[in-house]
Amino acid sequence: MDVREMLAVAVAEARQGLVEGGIPIGAALFGPDGDLLGRGHNRRVQDGDASTHAETAAFRAAGRRPGYRGTTMVTTLSPCWYCSGLVRQFGISHVVIGEARTFHGGHDWLAEHGVRITLLDDPECVAMMTDFIAARPELWFEDIGQEG
Amino acid sequence: MDVREMLAVAVAEARQGLVEGGIPIGAALFGPDGDLLGRGHNRRVQDGDASTHAETAAFRAAGRRPGYRGTTMVTTLSPCWYCSGLVRQFGISHVVIGEARTFHGGHDWLAEHGVRITLLDDPECVAMMTDFIAARPELWFEDIGQEG
Repeated sequence: MDVREMLAVAVAEARQGLVEGGIPIGAALFGPDGDLLGRGHNRRVQDGDASTHAETAAFRAAGRRPGYRGTTMVTTLSPCWYCSGLVRQFGISHVVIGEARTFHGGHDWLAEHGVRITLLDDPECVAMMTDFIAARPELWFEDIGQEG
Repeated sequence: MDVREMLAVAVAEARQGLVEGGIPIGAALFGPDGDLLGRGHNRRVQDGDASTHAETAAFRAAGRRPGYRGTTMVTTLSPCWYCSGLVRQFGISHVVIGEARTFHGGHDWLAEHGVRITLLDDPECVAMMTDFIAARPELWFEDIGQEG
């Protein structure tokens, strides 16, 4: 499975989040052989859960595992510090990012610490977040802990 | 409420986790006036949930909030990178740590980024984790993503 196919899974999750009235960020975790381990999307609105960013949702859906060596986390948006910390702590090897134009999280820090980063700069991901931030700025700022 | 009283809440959560057969790490989030916003403990074993470290459990229990300025996260153990990222991303102002002898996470990094850190070096917290790691090393290493 190539990185574009992986991203398509995360994009489908983001779209589902939008349909549900939520924040359109999706993610998926793939194993070393490209097998899908878990997928999910931001659930702040749907579950009233501030802790479930897309990457955490995908990580949780993958269940308990002895380790994450060789795994790939794909996300529609540059991972925030929380989700970047997840990647570093659990030793996820590779992060595929849809875009980092609308939000620049911790992926440079991850690269400094040996995580492989693939930034796709995908126009659909950029458009989805640009539209969302314009429509619901207060929700977006809440999701990244930026007080007005 | 002083930091020792705050720590007592996190220790009670950790003990509850141990009673449930889980990993004995607890946390709580307090507001600027010392009001308890949320509390919780690691739920890897109980829920088969790799994503719910104690700090995430407390953060989730606090519900959706517009911001975290002036809040204090108290945790029985030095926060891992994932939980340190949570603190940094959401702008939690102060982290009170029971102990950092059995595990040294990201609290120095948080201090560098302006988070106030109070390290209590509490003997009960040290004993609880020392005993747990000796009894269930494989579970502990799984929880911090350290492959054997």
